[in-house]
Amino acid sequence: MTEPIPPDLVAQVAHALQRIRAERPLIHNITNYVVMNYTANVLLALGASPIMAHAPEEVEELASAAGSLVVNIGTLSRPWIESMFRAGRAAKSAHVPVVLDPVGAGATGLRTETARRFFSEIQPLVVRANASETLALCREGAGKGVDATHAVDEAMRWAQDLAARCGTVFAVTGKEDCVTDGHRQIRILNGHPLMSRVTGTGCAATVIVAAFCAVESDPLIAAASGLTVFGIAGEMAAEGDPGPGTFAVRLLDALQRIDEGIIASRARIC
Amino acid sequence: MTEPIPPDLVAQVAHALQRIRAERPLIHNITNYVVMNYTANVLLALGASPIMAHAPEEVEELASAAGSLVVNIGTLSRPWIESMFRAGRAAKSAHVPVVLDPVGAGATGLRTETARRFFSEIQPLVVRANASETLALCREGAGKGVDATHAVDEAMRWAQDLAARCGTVFAVTGKEDCVTDGHRQIRILNGHPLMSRVTGTGCAATVIVAAFCAVESDPLIAAASGLTVFGIAGEMAAEGDPGPGTFAVRLLDALQRIDEGIIASRARIC
Amino acid sequence: MTEPIPPDLVAQVAHALQRIRAERPLIHNITNYVVMNYTANVLLALGASPIMAHAPEEVEELASAAGSLVVNIGTLSRPWIESMFRAGRAAKSAHVPVVLDPVGAGATGLRTETARRFFSEIQPLVVRANASETLALCREGAGKGVDATHAVDEAMRWAQDLAARCGTVFAVTGKEDCVTDGHRQIRILNGHPLMSRVTGTGCAATVIVAAFCAVESDPLIAAASGLTVFGIAGEMAAEGDPGPGTFAVRLLDALQRIDEGIIASRARIC
Repeated sequence: MTEPIPPDLVAQVAHALQRIRAERPLIHNITNYVVMNYTANVLLALGASPIMAHAPEEVEELASAAGSLVVNIGTLSRPWIESMFRAGRAAKSAHVPVVLDPVGAGATGLRTETARRFFSEIQPLVVRANASETLALCREGAGKGVDATHAVDEAMRWAQDLAARCGTVFAVTGKEDCVTDGHRQIRILNGHPLMSRVTGTGCAATVIVAAFCAVESDPLIAAASGLTVFGIAGEMAAEGDPGPGTFAVRLLDALQRIDEGIIASRARIC
Repeated sequence: MTEPIPPDLVAQVAHALQRIRAERPLIHNITNYVVMNYTANVLLALGASPIMAHAPEEVEELASAAGSLVVNIGTLSRPWIESMFRAGRAAKSAHVPVVLDPVGAGATGLRTETARRFFSEIQPLVVRANASETLALCREGAGKGVDATHAVDEAMRWAQDLAARCGTVFAVTGKEDCVTDGHRQIRILNGHPLMSRVTGTGCAATVIVAAFCAVESDPLIAAASGLTVFGIAGEMAAEGDPGPGTFAVRLLDALQRIDEGIIASRARIC
Repeated sequence: MTEPIPPDLVAQVAHALQRIRAERPLIHNITNYVVMNYTANVLLALGASPIMAHAPEEVEELASAAGSLVVNIGTLSRPWIESMFRAGRAAKSAHVPVVLDPVGAGATGLRTETARRFFSEIQPLVVRANASETLALCREGAGKGVDATHAVDEAMRWAQDLAARCGTVFAVTGKEDCVTDGHRQIRILNGHPLMSRVTGTGCAATVIVAAFCAVESDPLIAAASGLTVFGIAGEMAAEGDPGPGTFAVRLLDALQRIDEGIIASRARIC
C-alpha cells in the first residue's frame, strides 16, 4: 500500500452516518428475493430510504434519480439481468454510485459470467463480496460456493491488483473485513460470528456501503464506513449471546441506535 | 361532508374484528416481493387467511373465491400487471372486494400509469395509499416518491372529489389517517411514528383493510376499522420505545392481542 | 403397518442432527417468494447451508451438487415450473434427495396439476404436505385450501397406499404429524398450535426434512427426524405464550439451541 489512511477515519465514519440520517438518500436496489425485506429494513433502520424495483420500464428512471444503486445477483434470472445492466448504465450516466454484490459468483456459470460482465461493462464504484466471490470475479478457475471458503488475504491480493487497474473499490468481508482501492487499504476488525448465521447479512453489508456511497465521495472511505458501522451493530446485537432469530431483529435495532459516541468507542479500523 | 359518521363506530370496529377471527376470510394477495412474508404474517396475526398467488393461470380461480383481493404494485413487472387485471376482473364479477395499494405511484411512469389504469378499469372498492400516491392517482403532475411528501389534507381534497364521482373509498395514511367515500369522512388519530421505520407497514395497513372488507359491507367502515386496529396495534408495539426490528415483531404480537376492550379504550376516531 | 420402527429412533434423530451440524449440507431450494427468507434462516439456524436459485440456466448445476433439493410450489408460475422439473431431473440423476412441498395443491388447478405431474415424473424421495394437499395429490376430487381441512388420518390412508406403490415417503403434518413409506409408519406428537399462526412453518418443516435427507439415508427416518426436531423447537419457542411475531423469532433461536439432551427428553414419537 502506497498511501496512508486518513488519521481521522473514525470521525469521518460518524460524520458520514450523520449525513445519511440528515439526507435520507434514496437507495435503488435490484436484489434477490431472499433478502429484499431484510435489506429494506436495514436501510430504514440506518436512516436511508430504500426502493426495490426491477422492471425494465422503470429501472433507468429510478437508478438515475437515486443516491446510489445496488445490484445483487443472489436470485438471478435473464429478465432481471437485463434490468441490472439498464439500471447500471443509467446510474453511471447520471454519476450515481453503483455497488455490486456478486452473490454466489463461482457457484454457477450464470453467476460468475454475469458478475464478470457487469463488472467489466458497468465498472461499479464498489464491489462488496466474500473471499470466494471476490476470487471468482478476479481470476479464472476460482472456488465454489455462497459461503466464503477462501482466506480474505488471498482474495485481497487479487482484488488490490484489479482495483488498481479498474478504479473499483473492493470491500471483501469475512472474519475480518478489508477494503482496497488498489492504493490504500483499510482493515475493519468489527463484527461478530453470529452474522454468518443469518441470511442476508452479506447483502445487508452491501446496502449499507451503498448508503454511505450516497453521501461520501471517497468510495474507499464510504465502504470502510459502512462495514465499520455494520460490524459494530453486529457486536451490539450479539450482546447477551442471543439465538440467530433474536440476533437478526436486534441488528436492526442496533443500526438505529448506533451513534457518534458508540462509533468512537468501538471502531476497530486500521 | 354531508353525512355523519355512525355514533357506535368504535363498537362496529370491534365487532368486525370478531367476525374476522370467527370467519377467517381468505385474502388473495398479488403483492410485492418485499412485504409478502410480513403481510402474510400480519393477516395471520389478525385472524385472517392469506394466500399469495400471481400466476395468470390461477389468479381468477383464487380471486373469485376469496373474501377479498389485494393488488399492490410495489415491485411491478409486465407479467404481474396482466395477472392483477385478470384477478381484478374476476373479483369484480364475483362481487369480491378489491383493495388497491398504488405503491410508488408518482415515482415512475410505469407505476403511475398502472395504478391509474387499474383504478379506472377495475374500480376498486378501496384505495389505501399515502398522500403522494393518492395525488399521483387523482391528479396530473403529482409529486414523486414512495414516502409521502404531501400533506394528507391536500390529498384528501382530491380523493374526496374522485371518491364521490367513482364510488371508491380512499384510505389515505400518514401522520393522521383519513378515510372518505366522498360523502362521509373519518379521521383516525391512532398510530405511531415507528411505523414509518419498518418496510411494509403501508402494505400491512392495506391487507388489514382488505380483511375488514371481507366481513363488513360498508367499505368506509371497513377501511376505518382496519386503520384503527392497525394504528392501535402500532401504539401497543411501540410501548417501551423499541428499535425498529423489535417493533416490527411486536406489531404482529399486538395484532393478535388486540381485542374489544383495547379498541374501546384506545380508539381515537372522529 | 408390517414393519416396526427402530427402537433407538430418538437416538437416531439426535445423531442425524449432529451430522447436519458437522457437515453443513447445501440445500438447494426452488421455493415460494413468501417464505424464502424464513426458510433460509431456518436452515442456517439448524446448521445447514441454504441456497435459493430458480434460473433454468443454473438449477441443474446446483441441484446435482446439493445435499438435497426442495421444490415448493407456493407461488407458482410457468417459468419456475420449468426450472423445478429441470432441477428435479438433475437431482435424480445425481442421486440427490428431492423433497416436494405441494403448497396449495387442491386449491387451484395449476397447483394440483403441477404437484401431480412433478410427483409422477420426478418421483420425489419425500413429500411433506398437510392433509388437504396430500389428498389433492393422492386422489381425484380432493378438497380445497392452503390450510389443512381434512383429518390427517384420512390423508394417511391414501398416502400409505401411494407410498407403497411409488416408493415415496409421505410426511403429513397437522395437529399430529405422521410419516409413512407404505410399510412403516411413525407418528410425531411434538409441535404447538402457534406454528399455524406464522406463515411458512409448513415450508420450514419441509426444508428441515430436506436437511435430514442430506445426511440420513433412510428417508422415513429422515422425515421423522426433521418433524421431531421442528416440533420440539416449536414447543420451546412457545414457552411463555408469546405472540406470533415473537414466536417466529424464537423458533429460529430454538432450532439453533436444540441438542441431543433436549431431543431425548422431549421427543414424542411412536
